[in-house]
Amino acid sequence: MNDRIFLSDDELPRAWYNLAADLPGGMLPPLGPDGTPARLEQLAAIFPEELIAQEMCGDRWIDIPEDVRTLLARWRPSPLHRARALEAALGTTARIYYKNESVSPAGSHKPNTAVAQAYYNKRAGVKKLTTETGAGQWGSALAFATALFGLECKVYMVKSSYDQKPYRKMMMQTWGASCVPSPSRETQAGRAMLAEDPACPGSLGIAISEAVEEAVADGSGKTKYALGSVLNHVMLHQTVIGLEAKKQLAKAGEREPDQVIACVGGGSNFAGLAFPYAADKIAGSKVEIIPVEPESCPSLTKGSFLYDLGDVAGMTPLLPMYTLGHKFMPPTMHAGGLRYHGMSPLVSAGLKAGLFSPRAVSQLDCFEAGVVFARSEGIIPAPESSHAIAQVIKEANKATAEGKDTVILCGLSGHGIMDLAGYAAYFAGELSNYALPPEVIARSLACTEAFPRIS
Amino acid sequence: MNDRIFLSDDELPRAWYNLAADLPGGMLPPLGPDGTPARLEQLAAIFPEELIAQEMCGDRWIDIPEDVRTLLARWRPSPLHRARALEAALGTTARIYYKNESVSPAGSHKPNTAVAQAYYNKRAGVKKLTTETGAGQWGSALAFATALFGLECKVYMVKSSYDQKPYRKMMMQTWGASCVPSPSRETQAGRAMLAEDPACPGSLGIAISEAVEEAVADGSGKTKYALGSVLNHVMLHQTVIGLEAKKQLAKAGEREPDQVIACVGGGSNFAGLAFPYAADKIAGSKVEIIPVEPESCPSLTKGSFLYDLGDVAGMTPLLPMYTLGHKFMPPTMHAGGLRYHGMSPLVSAGLKAGLFSPRAVSQLDCFEAGVVFARSEGIIPAPESSHAIAQVIKEANKATAEGKDTVILCGLSGHGIMDLAGYAAYFAGELSNYALPPEVIARSLACTEAFPRIS
Repeated sequence: MNDRIFLSDDELPRAWYNLAADLPGGMLPPLGPDGTPARLEQLAAIFPEELIAQEMCGDRWIDIPEDVRTLLARWRPSPLHRARALEAALGTTARIYYKNESVSPAGSHKPNTAVAQAYYNKRAGVKKLTTETGAGQWGSALAFATALFGLECKVYMVKSSYDQKPYRKMMMQTWGASCVPSPSRETQAGRAMLAEDPACPGSLGIAISEAVEEAVADGSGKTKYALGSVLNHVMLHQTVIGLEAKKQLAKAGEREPDQVIACVGGGSNFAGLAFPYAADKIAGSKVEIIPVEPESCPSLTKGSFLYDLGDVAGMTPLLPMYTLGHKFMPPTMHAGGLRYHGMSPLVSAGLKAGLFSPRAVSQLDCFEAGVVFARSEGIIPAPESSHAIAQVIKEANKATAEGKDTVILCGLSGHGIMDLAGYAAYFAGELSNYALPPEVIARSLACTEAFPRIS
Repeated sequence: MNDRIFLSDDELPRAWYNLAADLPGGMLPPLGPDGTPARLEQLAAIFPEELIAQEMCGDRWIDIPEDVRTLLARWRPSPLHRARALEAALGTTARIYYKNESVSPAGSHKPNTAVAQAYYNKRAGVKKLTTETGAGQWGSALAFATALFGLECKVYMVKSSYDQKPYRKMMMQTWGASCVPSPSRETQAGRAMLAEDPACPGSLGIAISEAVEEAVADGSGKTKYALGSVLNHVMLHQTVIGLEAKKQLAKAGEREPDQVIACVGGGSNFAGLAFPYAADKIAGSKVEIIPVEPESCPSLTKGSFLYDLGDVAGMTPLLPMYTLGHKFMPPTMHAGGLRYHGMSPLVSAGLKAGLFSPRAVSQLDCFEAGVVFARSEGIIPAPESSHAIAQVIKEANKATAEGKDTVILCGLSGHGIMDLAGYAAYFAGELSNYALPPEVIARSLACTEAFPRIS
């Protein structure tokens, strides 16, 4: 009778899955400013040793420390739901399941890595973590995790979001973090921006520069930096999502999914659900794995596979990834978590290896899908998650038209109750679509021309 | 290793527990305007038959319909957590557990009854439900439940909250409900209030009058009214909370709790956790059951047990309850769910029978407790729930001082991420305490003098 598929606490995975171990062709290294592979010392200034080791690791499985599992177990294993009400609303022949990451205390999948990162930093004697946040999901997840470990936390929040989303800031404050609008007067990078433009609304790239600068400036090693997506160790920590989903589908007596669908921005939510299925695909499975991105920020479907910077200001190494160019300014939209110019190198390498079938969807399709989901399944999805749902609805309708019983697994990365202003704007008819024109992308990629090329 | 105690879906209770069956001395009837027991027809205008039957029922157990169980199973059984991090933060000898109702899609315990009420109305051929809401927890829970059953939903939201809490309104709208500020121009009661005072900020009493009026005015029987607390059938539907908690503590190998602590406004959250333990107490258990209310709205600790109206405008029968007088205007505070002049007749009768030991706590103690909880357990509690936590901390500290291993079970009625403005005001030092002076209560009770007395 139950459409929520349970796992007991014992079934919480004991190891993370590392796609790098299985990736056909392996991974290209990050490059330093001189074009040679980035050196460990460069990363050691901002990350603790154990996270750098995971970043570089070629092992297939990496044990999850028992203390991390205990904290994850406060809300994990997360539920897998059979979406019977959505199926009924669509009248589809497909069987739809969704993995519900909205049940974490911060409301998204982000705490899966925030807890792990806080743990390794605590073990390394770090006292304070700095980070950036755009819409606020990552900043609040790290504020949550650092509270559990008694670490200080400083979040540079993109100023336009800081002003528009006061609840996110209050959430971080309640967990004890300090949150400042970026650009701030607290760093050289911030002061330089403000000198140029006192009314600067900020960007993720500037906020990253400020957070990294603060970590590097504290020479004592007591302050480090944490990133919520893109890097290999972040993808790794999220794989509990897909590992659990596999067990849950088996428990439900369901066959392996025909399609695995998740939204993608920097890559961590998608990687979390999809990488364990990518392993199957490498081993011969026919599963179709679909990362879904906004048509206004289409790094996978319209970007190029290049060495590019992870941030605007050039504080990061050069990463081999699908990108729209590090100076690309994504148009404003209500899925702030997907507004990133680049893509996780692991996700990018997986696409290059033919494992993934990316799609781009429009903003209005996403909100329409989000409302259908809210009114059938009862959970208001984050605008990011509604990208996956919009694609699920398309695939389900296609299955119905073809009379197929396609099994679709969807990632629900978070709830949208901190993002209701977006829904209100949608109902008020204030939102529109914006497909990025090819000439804008071509211009935007020019900033990568000086970097080493991938042969 | 896990401090979250699981139940499988099979362990979701199959029947609700009805305290009325066991209450020493039984229940006094509600009275009509003429002072004689209220007649069924009066209730039939606003509630469907099956809910009226539950309201009057003397059976100990009432089966939960399978369709209701299936919907509750989307998030139930809710987790029971051992609060080890809170225990560590307090350095206490007590063992603290909390039942986490924040995991429902609407974020509180309210959907437990909203789903049941929507179900019975749907079966009775009702097409539309009207209700009132103060802070918005109940209104959003009913919007959620009516979406699942394809019912229309109209919520009269107290105007001051409507203006201050725009996210709640958007949440209801996303689930398809219509939400209007009360007093509105849509009812006689609303128009009369606006004629008197065009700037009227509204009150729960006025909003109830509007919602009931709309239901009564539709003579077709297609529109009914739904209430989120106070009445017997609402208490009944919430008992899944305590029934699950009992199973979970047993599963954890824990003894029966020494203290059961929950916040109380109209009574439904408290009743849900406490009534199954009240049954034990009637049977001889020594458990101490503590409803916790704000010192600014202290119906149980400072009110009188009287026949009084459930609303300001006199649309309800006279109910036998602890009350501060139906014209009492609770001072503004950040726990809107606890701002009610009266108390559930069942909770009131239980107190009269000596089953409960109520306490009142101050607003600042509550926010302080809420922050301690957020930074240790990682969940930001609703300001209502923080009343229970404040009392838990007092009891835990007392246990420590006495060297006792007291087992405390606490109800966490909901999360506070829609209430972060309250936390921000607390951090800014803008909040204060307000203990209601006895002379204000005496004056406020004068409005009940004309009603029949309880001998």
